Amino acid sequence: MRTLVTGGAGCIGSDLAEALLRRGDSVAVIDNLSSGKMEHLAPMVGHPRFSFLEADLQNPSAIASIMSGVERVYHLAANPDVKFTEGEATDKDLRQNLVYTYNVLEAMRQAGVHQIAFASTSAVYGISPIQPIPESAFFPAPISLYGATKLGCESLISAFQNLFGWRAWIFRFANIVGPKVRKKGRTVIGDFVTRLRENPRKLKILGDGKQAKSYLLAEECIEAMLFLVDHAQDPLNIFNLGCGDSLPVLRIADLVVEAMGLTGVEYEFTGGEGGWPGDVPRFRLDPSKINRLGWTARRNSEEAVRIAIESTIAALPAEAACKP
Amino acid sequence: MRTLVTGGAGCIGSDLAEALLRRGDSVAVIDNLSSGKMEHLAPMVGHPRFSFLEADLQNPSAIASIMSGVERVYHLAANPDVKFTEGEATDKDLRQNLVYTYNVLEAMRQAGVHQIAFASTSAVYGISPIQPIPESAFFPAPISLYGATKLGCESLISAFQNLFGWRAWIFRFANIVGPKVRKKGRTVIGDFVTRLRENPRKLKILGDGKQAKSYLLAEECIEAMLFLVDHAQDPLNIFNLGCGDSLPVLRIADLVVEAMGLTGVEYEFTGGEGGWPGDVPRFRLDPSKINRLGWTARRNSEEAVRIAIESTIAALPAEAACKP
Repeated sequence: MRTLVTGGAGCIGSDLAEALLRRGDSVAVIDNLSSGKMEHLAPMVGHPRFSFLEADLQNPSAIASIMSGVERVYHLAANPDVKFTEGEATDKDLRQNLVYTYNVLEAMRQAGVHQIAFASTSAVYGISPIQPIPESAFFPAPISLYGATKLGCESLISAFQNLFGWRAWIFRFANIVGPKVRKKGRTVIGDFVTRLRENPRKLKILGDGKQAKSYLLAEECIEAMLFLVDHAQDPLNIFNLGCGDSLPVLRIADLVVEAMGLTGVEYEFTGGEGGWPGDVPRFRLDPSKINRLGWTARRNSEEAVRIAIESTIAALPAEAACKP
Repeated sequence: MRTLVTGGAGCIGSDLAEALLRRGDSVAVIDNLSSGKMEHLAPMVGHPRFSFLEADLQNPSAIASIMSGVERVYHLAANPDVKFTEGEATDKDLRQNLVYTYNVLEAMRQAGVHQIAFASTSAVYGISPIQPIPESAFFPAPISLYGATKLGCESLISAFQNLFGWRAWIFRFANIVGPKVRKKGRTVIGDFVTRLRENPRKLKILGDGKQAKSYLLAEECIEAMLFLVDHAQDPLNIFNLGCGDSLPVLRIADLVVEAMGLTGVEYEFTGGEGGWPGDVPRFRLDPSKINRLGWTARRNSEEAVRIAIESTIAALPAEAACKP
């Protein structure tokens, strides 16, 4: 099968592309390298079934040039930064998530491609009164521009799927952690490790430390995506990807401190329920829909985070962190 | 209160603007007159508390120029055509619904406006397994580009509301009918009346005639909107606007035939569940949330449609139909 991975030079996209190559697919990657990195593609470059186009999804003709012969698109390209900081432009997510996704969908339509798998996010749920959150019953009120535009993308995919008789998979990711996903200062693990290396006696924790979220290892996330495109065969397949538990930020701080062999670290809280404007302070995903189909995460949130912490520390200082 | 009505020259927007003037508001209208009409504004032109700007929401500086001093925005401007026809551009709704809505939200943010009331649609629900459909429990899978982009707008509003501490009202309209809403060939009533005037012996009915939807009179829709901005005081207020019943298309055909004094009309069905690609064949809105707050539609779907039919026929042939 010929597949296209948008954002295929990213932390998750490149692992997915490698997994697709191992399955025997021909894999084309399109990435503008704004947050993806060539080094993520290095293991694939030169493979006879691999091709890479450095281009922006803002550019419909670039997308069209790589769409020919594609049978399935894995659309992972997005603005990777969930946080919105006062003073930033407010249209970053609109452009990079919504408009770019439209460009991909329209290029698919014009090329007659009928299958799309999309990396969405648990942020579409906003602050859900139902915990753990099932896919099927929620009041969609995203509180971040990231979550809002991802929900907009889901909606567009849903409409294209229906209007043109496509098959679509929408994956609502938990927080994805793992060896590659070491976004310095952008994920809680990278943030804690970086801060503690700078000052091993004090750790600033965003919010009140009680934020608690579902985590999933990147390798299991990729496994789940591939499982679902094989096993979920409705016209529109929407699935939570994660495990049913959650892990408090304070516990992650303890795990990082322990893994770094530190003691007596003083925690400083910036206060407030969420870590930043638009942060969903607490959520647990209900994974029973994918579980019923036959796939279950092997590591719970704490185990996933432990592995991610170990690999983050092991890679320091020799290897630079994966900037998003 | 100084209010801005986008799309205020439209069938619903102009009635809303008149109602706001009657309440004592200062009312600014922005409309590009692509589907809105100057004649809808005629009763307000010259009123000391009324102003009109002919401009497109594509143009941020135009929006900014009319936003100064505004306290609440009623955002009704949108692509009014729910139907997507094969061969049409697929980005019409993306631009006119999503991007224009973003432009309005960003202009509000820059001007420090904190209140928005938004005309959304029951089309956001797609084909809901739950009927009647409550606001709070649904699987949002819109099947039309119109519904998809309106859900995207809702999501953006939800994010802006949360990030900047706004108050927002989102109204999910039933099918709105009434004296002004006589969109030739675009609403089922106008379509039937037009066809029967051309050929009083035969009537082409899109789909299988079993499509059944919730209808609401335009004047009650406006009443409900004003009721909600006064009485719904959560930060984010999402409400279905309609009554809990639905009316089959075949019954509407019978009502039109009867109102036009015709007999022996032969019905011809184009076949299929929906009237067009992206048409939701059957839905009933659950209005209990607005009912509990103290407002209930006085006319059910059949009564609303009867009134709309009567006014449509009464206005023919002297008055041209309201083109969307």
